[in-house]
Amino acid sequence: MQRILSAQLPAHVGATVRIAGWTHRRRLLKSVAFLIVRDAAGTAQVVVTDPAVRAAVEALAEETVVEVVGTVTANPTAPAGVELTDPTVRPLGPPAVPPPFDLFRPTLSATLPTQLDHAPVALRHPRRSAALRVAAAAVAGFRATLDARGFVEVHTPKIVGSSTESGANVFALDYFGRPAYLAQSPQFYKQLLVGVLERVYEVGPVFRAEPHDTARHLAQYTSLDAELGFVTDHRDVMTVLRDTLAGLLDTVADRAGPALTLLDAAVPPVPAEIPAVHFTEALAIAGAPADEPDLAPAHERALGEWARREHGSDFLFVTGYPMAKRPFYTHPDPARPAYSNGFDLLFRGVELVTGGQRLHRHADYLAALAERGEPVEPYADYVDAFRHGMPPHGGFAIGLERLVARLVGAANVREVTAFPRDLHRLTP
Amino acid sequence: MQRILSAQLPAHVGATVRIAGWTHRRRLLKSVAFLIVRDAAGTAQVVVTDPAVRAAVEALAEETVVEVVGTVTANPTAPAGVELTDPTVRPLGPPAVPPPFDLFRPTLSATLPTQLDHAPVALRHPRRSAALRVAAAAVAGFRATLDARGFVEVHTPKIVGSSTESGANVFALDYFGRPAYLAQSPQFYKQLLVGVLERVYEVGPVFRAEPHDTARHLAQYTSLDAELGFVTDHRDVMTVLRDTLAGLLDTVADRAGPALTLLDAAVPPVPAEIPAVHFTEALAIAGAPADEPDLAPAHERALGEWARREHGSDFLFVTGYPMAKRPFYTHPDPARPAYSNGFDLLFRGVELVTGGQRLHRHADYLAALAERGEPVEPYADYVDAFRHGMPPHGGFAIGLERLVARLVGAANVREVTAFPRDLHRLTP
Repeated sequence: MQRILSAQLPAHVGATVRIAGWTHRRRLLKSVAFLIVRDAAGTAQVVVTDPAVRAAVEALAEETVVEVVGTVTANPTAPAGVELTDPTVRPLGPPAVPPPFDLFRPTLSATLPTQLDHAPVALRHPRRSAALRVAAAAVAGFRATLDARGFVEVHTPKIVGSSTESGANVFALDYFGRPAYLAQSPQFYKQLLVGVLERVYEVGPVFRAEPHDTARHLAQYTSLDAELGFVTDHRDVMTVLRDTLAGLLDTVADRAGPALTLLDAAVPPVPAEIPAVHFTEALAIAGAPADEPDLAPAHERALGEWARREHGSDFLFVTGYPMAKRPFYTHPDPARPAYSNGFDLLFRGVELVTGGQRLHRHADYLAALAERGEPVEPYADYVDAFRHGMPPHGGFAIGLERLVARLVGAANVREVTAFPRDLHRLTP
Repeated sequence: MQRILSAQLPAHVGATVRIAGWTHRRRLLKSVAFLIVRDAAGTAQVVVTDPAVRAAVEALAEETVVEVVGTVTANPTAPAGVELTDPTVRPLGPPAVPPPFDLFRPTLSATLPTQLDHAPVALRHPRRSAALRVAAAAVAGFRATLDARGFVEVHTPKIVGSSTESGANVFALDYFGRPAYLAQSPQFYKQLLVGVLERVYEVGPVFRAEPHDTARHLAQYTSLDAELGFVTDHRDVMTVLRDTLAGLLDTVADRAGPALTLLDAAVPPVPAEIPAVHFTEALAIAGAPADEPDLAPAHERALGEWARREHGSDFLFVTGYPMAKRPFYTHPDPARPAYSNGFDLLFRGVELVTGGQRLHRHADYLAALAERGEPVEPYADYVDAFRHGMPPHGGFAIGLERLVARLVGAANVREVTAFPRDLHRLTP
């Protein structure tokens, strides 16, 4: 008899079926016992009246893996309107030890550090696993949207020879006796691959030796990176980003609907055209002094409220950040060179995506590095490629864990990461 | 005027269009000049007769990025039957420096080390970029097949606290002052996540500090990992692997057809049921002594010939490898405990995939480690999870670069890797 999933039970009323999963909860009443079995699709209620079966169920701790053969019986008061009656219950392994916290309650009562210490068990809670399903759907939507637009997926080195992008916050490692570093982003490689494939994306781990112990920093996170050539300027990148976000969110709604429901979450609509304000306007809207070089979190919140009020949008582009605050490869606004063709996308008043147009002329790279007093040598492989013809291009990067945390309303990115890595945490 | 790609030209005969790309080749004849422009879709021939335009083209080195506006004109002798006439040519950047080797010849004449030193340029050669497209399609097919079978994509830590799987060949790093290591595989995490999501897969980098300088070893490669719970034994895993390979190869044929053609490659058919032989039979078929503990490359080649001859199959499963040669988490064959429920999949006589059923009982892990004289402590987080109920499960891992190299007939995995990392190579 083929195993079926709990969610398939309503289609089998009257039939004898086989299910399997984890002992999620047992309720041992006087005349009847209920065994709740959890599987990948949800839970199933098993009604036990036979004394021998009851004795077997009593001996199984929560989380024991079991197989149940029984009759699917309609019962309007049971979850999903069906339950399994007249069951046989067979453990698929020895009895489990009880979990360190109750998994059957609507939310985990254990503190986040305790959950993280016991991640293999904590992730089994339906709210924790639902977030992993939302993440998987988000990544699938990211790829599908870009695939449909001629992007090619690439895989780039995570071990690099020089600590480039920011210098600080890199993990150093011993590479066959030589110093090496973990890549903080695929930025340079995705640009080089624009010279090969025109449009590329990568979904992969990036590493930041973040000394910050906050709710939104991880030492390893999953970066959704895209880069495209033959753009006019950053606005072409913003168009692709808008479509990518819309496709990503549609896929989350399509593929992770039950997970969203369980988390009381819904995907926000993405306007056909996301409102955009220049950095200088953004300062004025936020009531910040005109000479501020960057937006503070309070400014971003004010902008989020403004976008909702004025445009009915959860999303807002801020363009033209000052060059001084953007990385050296950022393309300036030709009309106002102190401002960049870089942008941030705010979601409900918090930065969600960073992107922009990049420099594409070799001489511009040399000038940009010289202006910042940085040597060319650590960037030589990267900068040299621009001598061989690169089109105007740009791109963006989305941090998967932050995106998912925002979507599902998690206060801490660790709640939506299977096995987070941070300043203090290297296990499990 | 919207830019179109070279492959779209035949649909626009008679129209004025805009294309853009790289100066792939110039042929400067007496009365006419030909400019071959390469873009993401292929190449386009531009016919230049106007002296001013010719002078501009003469000034552009190969690889300069250009935009061409011209009339699409049918010409049966031109590639794809069309060419652009009466063009204007505008560089999108300054002239490039000539590439270190000719990109317009059918194959790159530069040695592989030279190509790798100049990877951002070498990858522009159509044969090199075609391999990247095959890899992208393979990964897409892997995911699509597993998505359709209820697998959930996961992202696991690449920085781990103990050098587990094999002990040797790990990269050590400084993690906020503590020793840590780069993960050699997501093996333990994917198993733990079977306890959460039942069926999971991951596509991500794995790291091996391989002291071997061979045509098939990389220090970082892309591993396609899958793991599934509630199996009867390894044969359920083999069924999923068979379907995954078939779906992967179908997607390569669908999405990377032109790339395969360019590489003179074709995807092999996957039999509805891949022939399988037990390790003991395999030794006999290969003419090896019955007490050999493993298959040597020559044995694998003999088995590949046998599978082709006897079953008309490029693929052959070898099951039941001796336990002594498999990792400690391998499930033994209950009927013959010296042999495992592990398998290899050979493709044309070379190992392509390794997989098998894993242990799922806590006591079995303790016994397996004790038998090998290994301490439990480094594996504590992993082993402890099996106290909380894990179903019978198994999985497999496919090395992307080796798979693609085999598919396209590349002698060295570095030919199909954008920026390989090995014993000697840390850049670009």
